[in-house]
Amino acid sequence: MTVAECVRRLQSTHLGRIGLVDREVRPLIFPVNYFFDEGVIVFRTGPGTKLDLAPGASVCFEIDHWDAAAGEGWSVLVKGIAHDITRPRGAPTSRMLYWPVKPLAPGSHQNWIGVWANEISGRWFRVTGSAE
Amino acid sequence: MTVAECVRRLQSTHLGRIGLVDREVRPLIFPVNYFFDEGVIVFRTGPGTKLDLAPGASVCFEIDHWDAAAGEGWSVLVKGIAHDITRPRGAPTSRMLYWPVKPLAPGSHQNWIGVWANEISGRWFRVTGSAE
Repeated sequence: MTVAECVRRLQSTHLGRIGLVDREVRPLIFPVNYFFDEGVIVFRTGPGTKLDLAPGASVCFEIDHWDAAAGEGWSVLVKGIAHDITRPRGAPTSRMLYWPVKPLAPGSHQNWIGVWANEISGRWFRVTGSAE
Repeated sequence: MTVAECVRRLQSTHLGRIGLVDREVRPLIFPVNYFFDEGVIVFRTGPGTKLDLAPGASVCFEIDHWDAAAGEGWSVLVKGIAHDITRPRGAPTSRMLYWPVKPLAPGSHQNWIGVWANEISGRWFRVTGSAE
């Protein structure tokens, strides 16, 4: 898929997955509600693993969809650096705190994290015949 | 969720996401078709990033589901070590090559990877009232 197509899909949904690396260099994946605009994935979180590991780190973000009836699937992967934007220092970041990021899971979500995308790639495929 | 409940959900679906760490210590997420049994996630792949990075490494595997109508969601995260089982050396692993792992994406999938789970955790939640 083109980057433009990936961006369109990133804007069409609000549930994805953040990928992190823990202190023992092991990967972690967590579902998050997000909002994407201006090349930035924004999600909210509270004290815990995501807040411990994401700020200042290389992270990734993934969305995917599989339509069994149509036999079509796609996935988009965003790579970038995460920053804690809870207390922004400038106008562009301050504006992100008005973005409609709606966490569905219960619990504290007072911290805002932005992932500045430096690479966006995607794949679309259709199953043709056997699934082998 | 209990581990038993996580295992039941791992057995109820066949599309999840593998988490890897690249050589620059950046996380990656790729959707894969899989089969889970006996504490092992098995998926198939071909030459490329997954085959380069997974064997011998700490990886993770995630599934999730969000039911908008019911206002309920859940996710399961498996952590473990991945091994290339394409040419197995023993009976238990040989048997896994008969598991029904059906990649939906086109392309080569001649390599079989098993992720031996050493930690399985899951979360279930229901939205109550505002999504704030």
